[in-house]
Amino acid sequence: MPNMKIAVIGGDGTGPEVTAEALKVMDAAAKLEGFTVEKTDFGFGGDHYLKTGEILPEGAVDELKKFDAIFLGAVGHPDVAPGILEKGLLLQLRFQLDQYINLRPVKLYPGVETPLKDKTPEDIDFVVVRENTEDLYAGIGGFLKKGSADEVATQTAIYSRKGCERWLRWAFEYTQKRNNPKGKKLTLVAKTNVLTYGHDLIWRTFQEVAKDYPDVEPDYNHVDACCMWMVKNPEYYDVIATTNMFGDIITDLGGIIQGGMGVAAGGNINPDAGGTSMYEPMGGSAPKYTGKNVINPIAAISAAAMLLEHTGQPAAGARVMKAIQTVTGTKMKSQSAGKMGYSTTEVGDLVVDALS
Amino acid sequence: MPNMKIAVIGGDGTGPEVTAEALKVMDAAAKLEGFTVEKTDFGFGGDHYLKTGEILPEGAVDELKKFDAIFLGAVGHPDVAPGILEKGLLLQLRFQLDQYINLRPVKLYPGVETPLKDKTPEDIDFVVVRENTEDLYAGIGGFLKKGSADEVATQTAIYSRKGCERWLRWAFEYTQKRNNPKGKKLTLVAKTNVLTYGHDLIWRTFQEVAKDYPDVEPDYNHVDACCMWMVKNPEYYDVIATTNMFGDIITDLGGIIQGGMGVAAGGNINPDAGGTSMYEPMGGSAPKYTGKNVINPIAAISAAAMLLEHTGQPAAGARVMKAIQTVTGTKMKSQSAGKMGYSTTEVGDLVVDALS
Ligand SMILES: CC(C)[C@H](C(=O)O)[C@@H](O)C(=O)O
Ligand SMILES: CC(C)[C@H](C(=O)O)[C@@H](O)C(=O)O
Repeated sequence: MPNMKIAVIGGDGTGPEVTAEALKVMDAAAKLEGFTVEKTDFGFGGDHYLKTGEILPEGAVDELKKFDAIFLGAVGHPDVAPGILEKGLLLQLRFQLDQYINLRPVKLYPGVETPLKDKTPEDIDFVVVRENTEDLYAGIGGFLKKGSADEVATQTAIYSRKGCERWLRWAFEYTQKRNNPKGKKLTLVAKTNVLTYGHDLIWRTFQEVAKDYPDVEPDYNHVDACCMWMVKNPEYYDVIATTNMFGDIITDLGGIIQGGMGVAAGGNINPDAGGTSMYEPMGGSAPKYTGKNVINPIAAISAAAMLLEHTGQPAAGARVMKAIQTVTGTKMKSQSAGKMGYSTTEVGDLVVDALS
Repeated sequence: MPNMKIAVIGGDGTGPEVTAEALKVMDAAAKLEGFTVEKTDFGFGGDHYLKTGEILPEGAVDELKKFDAIFLGAVGHPDVAPGILEKGLLLQLRFQLDQYINLRPVKLYPGVETPLKDKTPEDIDFVVVRENTEDLYAGIGGFLKKGSADEVATQTAIYSRKGCERWLRWAFEYTQKRNNPKGKKLTLVAKTNVLTYGHDLIWRTFQEVAKDYPDVEPDYNHVDACCMWMVKNPEYYDVIATTNMFGDIITDLGGIIQGGMGVAAGGNINPDAGGTSMYEPMGGSAPKYTGKNVINPIAAISAAAMLLEHTGQPAAGARVMKAIQTVTGTKMKSQSAGKMGYSTTEVGDLVVDALS
């Protein structure tokens, strides 16, 4: 059986703790499925930056490209100004590795509490396909008369036909494969009535690409309406395709309705041949819980399940996903740090036990 | 007593129906407080556009400037392509009348159901101060190689120091006046870690303006975190200041947690001397309910309360706001169209009765 080679960036705060549990579960699932996972640690993050002044060393991206996938714990350090590590590490990797899909399943696991009334795991089960390389994240803008009373600042969203097409095509294909028994529906979430240039390109591309997927129902929501709908009728959604900026917003909303940062995970995917993808729990580095063995590793373990699923080991991925749901549904008291009824490592052990 | 002169744009669909109730309540409140409201109808909207091809006739804006305030019912017509009326009427008026504050109270009235678990009217009671004239709403952008495989589209957000300052100053002053017994706190909601040009100007302006309001706690949330927090801990917020685009998104989220489009209202305010402001319920024109006398007028009546409050009649405004809460708290069965237990006009009558 071929080894899977992954690069591990544990990162800051509780990142390494949840990463350890994710790797433990990955190893156990691999053993059951008859393959092995070879791990190489990369010590990037706040501490490395504070010691060396560098975030991603020269050549790091080329090095990372040699792996089958990357696992990222968390970035964010109390002694580093906000934005530095996020931009220098997370966004750099997304861009330089051309991970143009940000995949965010919004799924309420059994036993997990949602802040929404009367919603069950059947109601909260959709996937957001966020574009991950364009839009306002291009980092383009500037200042006129900076610091004066007449200052003007700009920030430009850029979209390319190629960028829209590869993302939307992937979203249609994903919707097709997801094969929701309630009906295959892809909802584009944008703001075409106001962003009449940028989102017009997206809208035209969406309509054209849709023709190639006649079994998928193309649907549209303005982003403001989508936020209402996600709270009121999350069962309406199957797959959502949205832009980088709006995706940032609605996936956090999705994260909270599925039970919060302790459970939400995402993949930064480059689906092209030879592409390197990166999987991460959505929570931050949670500095105040560091070293206490109380943080919830379920999000990290979910990220591991996604990694396996999308890196040629779907059976192992499905096995982990099922084990997670056994543990949330029958064991854990809460998904909040310190209230789980178990320690971080114990939750990892419970998932390992539930694998077989 | 001086008359108050208002311009009334009933608009499309159910717009005129809810407007009629709002005006009825306004008249009754004015009578009790000893003043009169003179109303002038403007027939703008989808029908007018379909008949004449014009949205805002020549000179209309100058005409509207002569009034003390504008009441807008709803725009949106099934036979008019989405965006046309919203841009041609609503956004035009916001821009041309320089209504730089979009004020959106997020308040759960007694008896109204929120989709959030365990949240009471004490928990959901904050105000969003959305900037209303800049940002991505500038309508600036373009296409390169439109229609080709190499097409690129841009959409530019522009912010000015002047625009940021007047909006943020207003927000600080509003927070001061609101005088929340839990503590005066103004939370700026932006995305400084990614929008490092545009939102840097906002951030710098926020910090400088904050110095003039030492009794207000300046606070900051990234927009993605804010969406989570609004659902999980809405009681955290007192006043939120945010940009036009993010405000569009989070005020709809606010609308749903306060019980939906049947109750949410907003003001487009030009607070400068001689400025003309416009108040509107947040719901759309709801064409399928038109003429059925089943739509909920509470949002429109709330908009009327805001109009009175901000147009020199705060006592009348407070009286209407109190009456609304009596009716939602003791009479109405639901805030959804057709399920209120009363017709549109009956709800209007109930509020009138509750005024005294
Ligand atoms: C940390 C930040 C730059 C990042 C983003 O804005 O994309 C995060 O919010 C996310 O959603 O992964
Ligand atoms: C109708 C639309 C143009 C408008 C906006 O985007 O501002 C609406 O959503 C609002 O929030 O008032």
